[in-house]
Amino acid sequence: MVPRYARPAMSDIWTPESRFRIWFEIEAHATDALAELGVVPKEAAKAIWEKGAFEVERIDAIEAEVKHDVIAFLTNVAEHVGEPARFMHQGMTSSDVLDTCLAVQLARASDILLDDLDKLLEAIKRRALEHKLTPTIGRSHGIHAEPVTFGLKLAQAYAEFDRNRARLKAARADVATCAISGAVGTFANIDPRVEAHVAEKMGLTTEPVSTQVIPRDRHAMFFATLGVIASSIERLATEVRHLQRTEVLEAEEYFSPGQKGSSAMPHKRNPVLTENLTGLARMVRGYVTPALENVALWHERDISHSSVERFIGPDATITLDFALARLTSVIDKLVVYPARMQKNLDRMGGLVHSQRVLLALTQAGVSREDAYRLVQRNAMKVWESDGALSLMELLKADPDVTAALSPQEIEARFDLDYHLKHVDTIFARVFGD
Amino acid sequence: MVPRYARPAMSDIWTPESRFRIWFEIEAHATDALAELGVVPKEAAKAIWEKGAFEVERIDAIEAEVKHDVIAFLTNVAEHVGEPARFMHQGMTSSDVLDTCLAVQLARASDILLDDLDKLLEAIKRRALEHKLTPTIGRSHGIHAEPVTFGLKLAQAYAEFDRNRARLKAARADVATCAISGAVGTFANIDPRVEAHVAEKMGLTTEPVSTQVIPRDRHAMFFATLGVIASSIERLATEVRHLQRTEVLEAEEYFSPGQKGSSAMPHKRNPVLTENLTGLARMVRGYVTPALENVALWHERDISHSSVERFIGPDATITLDFALARLTSVIDKLVVYPARMQKNLDRMGGLVHSQRVLLALTQAGVSREDAYRLVQRNAMKVWESDGALSLMELLKADPDVTAALSPQEIEARFDLDYHLKHVDTIFARVFGD
Amino acid sequence: MVPRYARPAMSDIWTPESRFRIWFEIEAHATDALAELGVVPKEAAKAIWEKGAFEVERIDAIEAEVKHDVIAFLTNVAEHVGEPARFMHQGMTSSDVLDTCLAVQLARASDILLDDLDKLLEAIKRRALEHKLTPTIGRSHGIHAEPVTFGLKLAQAYAEFDRNRARLKAARADVATCAISGAVGTFANIDPRVEAHVAEKMGLTTEPVSTQVIPRDRHAMFFATLGVIASSIERLATEVRHLQRTEVLEAEEYFSPGQKGSSAMPHKRNPVLTENLTGLARMVRGYVTPALENVALWHERDISHSSVERFIGPDATITLDFALARLTSVIDKLVVYPARMQKNLDRMGGLVHSQRVLLALTQAGVSREDAYRLVQRNAMKVWESDGALSLMELLKADPDVTAALSPQEIEARFDLDYHLKHVDTIFARVFGD
Amino acid sequence: MVPRYARPAMSDIWTPESRFRIWFEIEAHATDALAELGVVPKEAAKAIWEKGAFEVERIDAIEAEVKHDVIAFLTNVAEHVGEPARFMHQGMTSSDVLDTCLAVQLARASDILLDDLDKLLEAIKRRALEHKLTPTIGRSHGIHAEPVTFGLKLAQAYAEFDRNRARLKAARADVATCAISGAVGTFANIDPRVEAHVAEKMGLTTEPVSTQVIPRDRHAMFFATLGVIASSIERLATEVRHLQRTEVLEAEEYFSPGQKGSSAMPHKRNPVLTENLTGLARMVRGYVTPALENVALWHERDISHSSVERFIGPDATITLDFALARLTSVIDKLVVYPARMQKNLDRMGGLVHSQRVLLALTQAGVSREDAYRLVQRNAMKVWESDGALSLMELLKADPDVTAALSPQEIEARFDLDYHLKHVDTIFARVFGD
Repeated sequence: MVPRYARPAMSDIWTPESRFRIWFEIEAHATDALAELGVVPKEAAKAIWEKGAFEVERIDAIEAEVKHDVIAFLTNVAEHVGEPARFMHQGMTSSDVLDTCLAVQLARASDILLDDLDKLLEAIKRRALEHKLTPTIGRSHGIHAEPVTFGLKLAQAYAEFDRNRARLKAARADVATCAISGAVGTFANIDPRVEAHVAEKMGLTTEPVSTQVIPRDRHAMFFATLGVIASSIERLATEVRHLQRTEVLEAEEYFSPGQKGSSAMPHKRNPVLTENLTGLARMVRGYVTPALENVALWHERDISHSSVERFIGPDATITLDFALARLTSVIDKLVVYPARMQKNLDRMGGLVHSQRVLLALTQAGVSREDAYRLVQRNAMKVWESDGALSLMELLKADPDVTAALSPQEIEARFDLDYHLKHVDTIFARVFGD
Repeated sequence: MVPRYARPAMSDIWTPESRFRIWFEIEAHATDALAELGVVPKEAAKAIWEKGAFEVERIDAIEAEVKHDVIAFLTNVAEHVGEPARFMHQGMTSSDVLDTCLAVQLARASDILLDDLDKLLEAIKRRALEHKLTPTIGRSHGIHAEPVTFGLKLAQAYAEFDRNRARLKAARADVATCAISGAVGTFANIDPRVEAHVAEKMGLTTEPVSTQVIPRDRHAMFFATLGVIASSIERLATEVRHLQRTEVLEAEEYFSPGQKGSSAMPHKRNPVLTENLTGLARMVRGYVTPALENVALWHERDISHSSVERFIGPDATITLDFALARLTSVIDKLVVYPARMQKNLDRMGGLVHSQRVLLALTQAGVSREDAYRLVQRNAMKVWESDGALSLMELLKADPDVTAALSPQEIEARFDLDYHLKHVDTIFARVFGD
Repeated sequence: MVPRYARPAMSDIWTPESRFRIWFEIEAHATDALAELGVVPKEAAKAIWEKGAFEVERIDAIEAEVKHDVIAFLTNVAEHVGEPARFMHQGMTSSDVLDTCLAVQLARASDILLDDLDKLLEAIKRRALEHKLTPTIGRSHGIHAEPVTFGLKLAQAYAEFDRNRARLKAARADVATCAISGAVGTFANIDPRVEAHVAEKMGLTTEPVSTQVIPRDRHAMFFATLGVIASSIERLATEVRHLQRTEVLEAEEYFSPGQKGSSAMPHKRNPVLTENLTGLARMVRGYVTPALENVALWHERDISHSSVERFIGPDATITLDFALARLTSVIDKLVVYPARMQKNLDRMGGLVHSQRVLLALTQAGVSREDAYRLVQRNAMKVWESDGALSLMELLKADPDVTAALSPQEIEARFDLDYHLKHVDTIFARVFGD
Repeated sequence: MVPRYARPAMSDIWTPESRFRIWFEIEAHATDALAELGVVPKEAAKAIWEKGAFEVERIDAIEAEVKHDVIAFLTNVAEHVGEPARFMHQGMTSSDVLDTCLAVQLARASDILLDDLDKLLEAIKRRALEHKLTPTIGRSHGIHAEPVTFGLKLAQAYAEFDRNRARLKAARADVATCAISGAVGTFANIDPRVEAHVAEKMGLTTEPVSTQVIPRDRHAMFFATLGVIASSIERLATEVRHLQRTEVLEAEEYFSPGQKGSSAMPHKRNPVLTENLTGLARMVRGYVTPALENVALWHERDISHSSVERFIGPDATITLDFALARLTSVIDKLVVYPARMQKNLDRMGGLVHSQRVLLALTQAGVSREDAYRLVQRNAMKVWESDGALSLMELLKADPDVTAALSPQEIEARFDLDYHLKHVDTIFARVFGD
């Protein structure tokens, strides 16, 4: 965890205090259920809730001796609860507590991330509607292709993050399970009803079949999903980085008054937020493979997954939370330059309309191969002039072209609105009516 | 693609013939829709279906010249269709064909993989029911813990692959979309109804908003899901490898009469199939990161994803198909040794029952800490004797223990059936009633 | 392996024919050494060289029955050699043949890759010298910074690939070892002198201590090194992609006369080669993690590495060979536009000289903070004018600036040559004198 | 960074205090060189060393406003140094400081890791010599193969970590470079002699050609090397985990008196340290791909690498340092059970000698194929008896075998020392004479 890339609400989920508090709740709820089943005295369960407490430092001190975190925790709680503490953890195994706690933490982290996605979607939608009909050049291979609108670019981003929202909801459901099933998952020493009770109280579903642990394919799917979301962040961040290039400059990250772009070059305004997001995406992606490698635990469990999760549990969720919030802010405050978009659109001498002429020629009876050659030979001249020549004028002066199309027919193909006629259709698909 | 790890049905999806056939269908259906809309003559659409054909070698030859695969394909088809061919591909862009084709291929691949998973689930279920009550030792950290049944191990595998089935269905839906939206996704030169028609005919849904391409977060999620499934394969394969170890030998891959385990050591019978599956899982996982890196294409698209997909499209699906089928065969024919399982269960001098004694002591009023110490000091003696001593006998001879528990109460804790009483519950959860 | 990304010389290394030929040589050399040591008859060794032969199809057929590739190979060779064949493979284990063969293949692949790197270095050097003093804007964050030369960009690429060359040589040495040490590496049934003889004949060093296999940390290091080289390819490819952007267009991939950039847009000339290289780099990087996962084989070996290597051995080397050759061709034929570079340099109204003014102000006694503010406030006006205003003129009109610097002193800071004065120094460092 | 997996010496390298201290030294040394060259007053350089100071909190506060860490640092130092501070950072760019600082940190981290490796090598060597001739079974595929010694296993580990030591030294040299070359690497505003001076003072070499940054292929190679080392850690850790399995129990992690293996099962002694190392290895490997993705920065640099390095700089080095130290401790204190090794060696009824009989038969004139069949048919009986039958006795009773070998000749093949005769040779190769 890198403090500068962390926000408090998400970080709080992963503090020792939070973890031990969740452990305590799991143990106390489990004892309630055991009491209800008559396995332990009801007064013991009551005493645990009433007197139960812990101190992080004390737990650490005990763990240094016994080298087992859950035993250290139980010992510390027993120091507060006294004699009834011996009824805690009856028939449970450490992983019952640890894995159910991780499920609670990941579910809470998911809720924050889902909220982050909602805010991002809201920001993207607002800007998309604002620029629904702002014309800009569409580019494939970094090369001008045909006109789109800036709103369409954002509509695509909206649809992508909306898919990510659905994926994250599925991933949340995958990890939000509770296992209180004992040393090897057989419920030998604990009734399955205890699991059901704890699950309900902690907002989880019950794990149908656990070994000593909750199976790690669930967590692998969760972290893989975060990796996909991070990749989508990289995509939108890369778009902004491209748009802010000096030669393009169609949009720019907000640059606050006190900000300095470069210690050496006072003229610089750099897309540092989106470059930063590109790097953060690499990190969140980097956690996917360790999570996948965690699946193949030996037999009923080995503990190799644990150290991995101590890293990636906090690091992946905290980093993604930060990245989503930063991206939301970037989109929210993005400075958009429609005039520059238009200028860039115009700079190619009309080449962006080449396809329409091609189609018009084929519809006028020219073979596709011939039409392609006719358009290409004029287009290449415009290309080499860096937009100084006009494709429309060259076509009108090409007798092989005018043999098929009249000047008026040629001119009619150089119409920007033609490209925008289905923007409504697409917006309706993405945002609903 | 490594031929020895490929099966024909899946490989066929990825041949040039299959790809060009799908291209042809997409183009022909699109022309149908264009004809229906009155954009092109109905006879042209009819001629394409009737005379349309292609030859892989011819396409390759043309591509060598024009350096563009779709143009090469169209040129070759036009050689068969003649003049009406100029109405093909009207207003479409190459990616409309390529991406929709990839969607068809991944959907078909998914169907095979889903079928593979069904067969695997069936095999696991059959063996799980067969060994529902076959006792075996449960192990955590590779160390004997408490008894489970071999059926429970398989029930866990069943539940895991059943989750994978659901994930794959979701991933299939994610990639099975059709985009026929033109050069930059604006439908400038093609009516959205063409897309709807092609989607329906090819068994896909329509892509709500595409750029020049279908967004690659969809494919990233697909390949990430394959990576999770591969990790589950590794888990079950690793279980078999462990069980076949010389010292454990509780189960063994089927070893056919003509087979040789080692060129040098005639006595060897090695778990080579599951070791192989472990390696194949590494490969399928290795394709996840390139798929994630494919998401952040530049602007409305760059073509960097294409070479990646030429590798991982076939390699990930063909390898996973092979691996699932191989795992199914391993499980199906797995030689299980219940007698050896029982022998291993017994080899620890009753240590596997230590928790029950611990619980009995605490229920008899001994503090958890004292109870743990009492059991541990006897357990360690048994441990060091390598099972020659009996925990039950030692406990009955320990006055601190017998102060709390009578010999009969101690003996009652060494009961195997006690551990199996909830097997029915778990099986009902996993397989239904 | 994807045929379109494969070149014959590298592919040939990985054919069954090549592999079996290497196996044959290893076995025959080993038998020579055994004969020399008096373990087997000299006539047998001679007979093996004279009559030894194999057929790929026959080996496949035998393997289908015995399920062991080396046994199948030996059986087939024995069919040609006859009775003396029983002296082959004496005291050896399959991995002695397989691992030593892989070492030979990787060494040969390295030699091709080293040659590829030499050719790439040569092309980069030629173009670097050609454009040693071609001014172009240096960019950080995609934003104009200060002038560099196009030759300097290439000099950096040269230095980077020169480091990669050294890394690959080290990696080659790491994998080029021979192990003929028997079933578990103890030389129980084979004299270490056999290993020494085979190593020498096959151009390898001897493995100091093997288990059943050559340790896989060697191969992990090898494939990790290929991953680094691939990343450098991506870097240079990305540079070209950026330079070819419509708005930048400072350089362009060579576009052959018959080529078509887009099936729909006849005006397109796309950087498809370098985009392709970006994708290929992702693949070669994707093979690193499986290679790392191969290291932790169980005990004296398990065979999980084998399937991984059947993929990545060919795929990583063939793909990297292709990519290096393609990159060499891209650099070799790159169309460079110095006039456009100059035009881009000039488009920012002199902002690229802002740092020099800043330094001049501080040297004239203005505090760094004040100097930064003075320059920034004028620079921002130029920035917002999209280069219509001139930084030099604005500074000359700013009394707070002219209080410290005379107009002549200001003008002197807007000198391009100032930035190029150490190009010789850097070229001497990179290319020698 | 996870505190429980961190050791102070390595962590200290990565504190803000350490980083700013290195920044200060770089700036002060650079000013010295500038003074020597007459660019700035010598008194200014002296004042910087004498009065220069910084406070982490103050830097953080300034950075919150200016959003630029190096400017914040310089501003804070200037508050202490006063007027001469304006001569700091003359002609430098932030990356000159940041990248050179990172080089110093990675070089120092390498020194600790090299020292860790030395200690690990020492521990492995000590235990290898101790168990040079302790016989144990060699296993391929987890199946008993032929005898080795425990010392040989450790000799292999020694050779592997010795290779890793050499790789790390090379990786250290790769990253330990200094760049003080200005905004785009041209030395426009700073003399190359400043770089040479700083490099010498900070213990680095000079970077031959930088852009705004030191090229990231260097760092990629560094982190890839750490990934290889981590994989070797996983290998040795996995070996220990296997040896400690209940059924094998040939060695065991040291288990301290106060330690508890399981909260539920008092009999457990688990290989938790080596399982933990397996997980830590996954993490260090997980940092390789982000480092590779950092190579392809845009043009003369973008800042996407920075956030990645804020994670992986500390996390990879701190985690690997901890893991190496933990592994050293595991090996140092490993409890080895030679008696159990012998017992396991004997448990297969002599099957481990099958190859020698095979060789004896072929040398006695039986064809390899026939010999294999003869041995295998007897071996399989022993296998199925779980070691109750004796291979030697069965062979002596098999007339087809005794037709070729006398009972004495058969018995002579069941000799353990035969397998150990080259241990000296191998030890001499690995440890020298």
